[in-house]
Amino acid sequence: LKGILFISIYIAFFHLLGINTMKVKGKHFSSIWVDELDKSLINIIDQRKLPFEFKILQLRTIKDYFDAIKDMAVRGAPLIGVTAGFAIYVAALESQNSADWTRYIVDMANYIKSARPTAVNLEWAVNDQLNLIESSGNPSEYIELLYHNACKLRENDIEINRQIGINGVVLIENLNKYLKRTVNILTHCNAGWLATVDYGTALSPIFEANARGIDVHVWVDETRPRNQGAKLTAWELENEGIKHTVIPDNTGGHLMQNGIVDIVIVGTDRTSINGDVANKIGTYLKALAAYDNNIPFYVAAPSSSIDFSIDTSKSKIPIEQRDQREVRYVDGLLEGQLVEILTVPEESPCANYAFDVTPSRLVTGLITEMGICSSKKEGISNLFPNRV
Amino acid sequence: LKGILFISIYIAFFHLLGINTMKVKGKHFSSIWVDELDKSLINIIDQRKLPFEFKILQLRTIKDYFDAIKDMAVRGAPLIGVTAGFAIYVAALESQNSADWTRYIVDMANYIKSARPTAVNLEWAVNDQLNLIESSGNPSEYIELLYHNACKLRENDIEINRQIGINGVVLIENLNKYLKRTVNILTHCNAGWLATVDYGTALSPIFEANARGIDVHVWVDETRPRNQGAKLTAWELENEGIKHTVIPDNTGGHLMQNGIVDIVIVGTDRTSINGDVANKIGTYLKALAAYDNNIPFYVAAPSSSIDFSIDTSKSKIPIEQRDQREVRYVDGLLEGQLVEILTVPEESPCANYAFDVTPSRLVTGLITEMGICSSKKEGISNLFPNRV
Repeated sequence: LKGILFISIYIAFFHLLGINTMKVKGKHFSSIWVDELDKSLINIIDQRKLPFEFKILQLRTIKDYFDAIKDMAVRGAPLIGVTAGFAIYVAALESQNSADWTRYIVDMANYIKSARPTAVNLEWAVNDQLNLIESSGNPSEYIELLYHNACKLRENDIEINRQIGINGVVLIENLNKYLKRTVNILTHCNAGWLATVDYGTALSPIFEANARGIDVHVWVDETRPRNQGAKLTAWELENEGIKHTVIPDNTGGHLMQNGIVDIVIVGTDRTSINGDVANKIGTYLKALAAYDNNIPFYVAAPSSSIDFSIDTSKSKIPIEQRDQREVRYVDGLLEGQLVEILTVPEESPCANYAFDVTPSRLVTGLITEMGICSSKKEGISNLFPNRV
Repeated sequence: LKGILFISIYIAFFHLLGINTMKVKGKHFSSIWVDELDKSLINIIDQRKLPFEFKILQLRTIKDYFDAIKDMAVRGAPLIGVTAGFAIYVAALESQNSADWTRYIVDMANYIKSARPTAVNLEWAVNDQLNLIESSGNPSEYIELLYHNACKLRENDIEINRQIGINGVVLIENLNKYLKRTVNILTHCNAGWLATVDYGTALSPIFEANARGIDVHVWVDETRPRNQGAKLTAWELENEGIKHTVIPDNTGGHLMQNGIVDIVIVGTDRTSINGDVANKIGTYLKALAAYDNNIPFYVAAPSSSIDFSIDTSKSKIPIEQRDQREVRYVDGLLEGQLVEILTVPEESPCANYAFDVTPSRLVTGLITEMGICSSKKEGISNLFPNRV
């Protein structure tokens, strides 16, 4: 309750201040929004084309949602969750043509959940919607309810991420005071506003630091195989005018050994109750290097990405394996055209594990919307006493 | 002397057995050889085009050598060394037109050395050639000497690598006996026959294991930014019919956590006398992960890559920074044509550190032509008592 009150005050505060959210070439955008003319249409930025093409996609059918999540037109655990929220609303719209409408919604909920297995936000948002529905009644009663709840999930995501920025910026501010120079931050993959509705998780403290005039520079891991660092994180930072350098994923350890990384901040797709962090493949390697060089390693974890039901000392977080085509082909610009090229010998097989799990012992702390805590059961339960 | 005798016996042994070296589509090739018709012409495989185009380049002038090394038409510490050996022979040929021929050769030697700063083999081979020359006399006296010494460097490299295979295969053989299943080996970058004259360093034990019928599977790190793993290592393994899977550089840690890597074997560009290993950027991250998961981490280090003059507790190994263009652009096949595409936003800067240094404490051992030793001063001096 205290948390909700706290967030509500923040919502009011920033709305009153009229603070702008993230920008594309100076104009504000969020990553998902309801169409102004037709509220059954949801607009998203097609993240597969960025940074080379800025294209807006409209999601209409449940299949559109599944494809957008599966093919990563939308990606990032928080954004996947919000998108799934709208998907259940659309499933309810579609269910009106079905003989057994509750069954249709539940089937579609499972279909959407199956699109990406690792991010817990997807499951969480779908369940949050399903909880509103009782099998009595008829779908028309629930459509408005589901619509408003999806919008609420979207709004909450924005404010939660803003709060992560407020909480996390303290770490950067302190480093800046102590070091009296540019703070060098390393991040992996994209946990920026494109991975959420707005502000981002790992990048939110960086945007906030920039807004406060703190001198920061970001080492951006390219993040193979889909290059979300090089493509999305670099693009977001460029649009906000924040100094950054794109590096191959191999580079971070060397930079840490040479004292040019002051802090690592990454996102998470699912953090277990005992503080193990599933995040984009390669996160574990950076955590090892940070630990080896005494560099703080923080995970920006909205509570929607914490899986309060899973203890990884007892069971495992499912790790998605994606199509090897994503390793085999790289996309980019050739003479102004977006093309895809083969980079591996035709006959050689590839493997594409999408995530890895960084053990709690390597994580300095979690930055949540409720504050910063240790990545241990005790730390998490201090901030979220009712959920552990 | 014992070493030379030992190697000589091996040369004789394998020549008598008529054992074939490495193959391209069934036909034997080495990575560098003297032209049959004109011994002042040296042929190399242009490694920038592989695996998509198999193109042979002819090196004639000292500028050709510099460019081939600098632009990485030839790469891999041992091959760079052998190429540099021939470069000094060509410098002597060219010096005949110079007023001050010794000065010309020394200038050209420094020019060649400046092409790549990290690999010690380059410096070593150039100096080995320079030691033959006395400033008295005239170049014609030395040309044959330098030619024969360059050929000897080439032949020695082949036999040294063969010996690394013989010494290293024991590790794989033992794992296979113990595990009673396929041995999963992870390697980074290309330390195969293309990185040497023949057989390779890190891949030599793998080729030898395959020749002995041991069931192996190789996890091939893609190795950004130049993708020598995906392009060259995968291609070599495919040509030898060895099971392999190409993975993004981010993946190795996850594989190790899940028990599907049994041993890591990599090459080195320069190993200090105290056992710190400079190798392709990202090697350090894999060494950390291997250490964290109790997986043996071996470095295949011909003595020409051991820098007996440098103690990294006192001074540093120079780390080459290459053009950021290599990070920004990726090359590959588009509709059968080799093209280069932009993968990073135009405005975003990139950094391209070519190597990192893996501390001795993370290295299980060095596989040298003289045997396997710990990656410590004591281990190295046991095998090379006259050089420490």
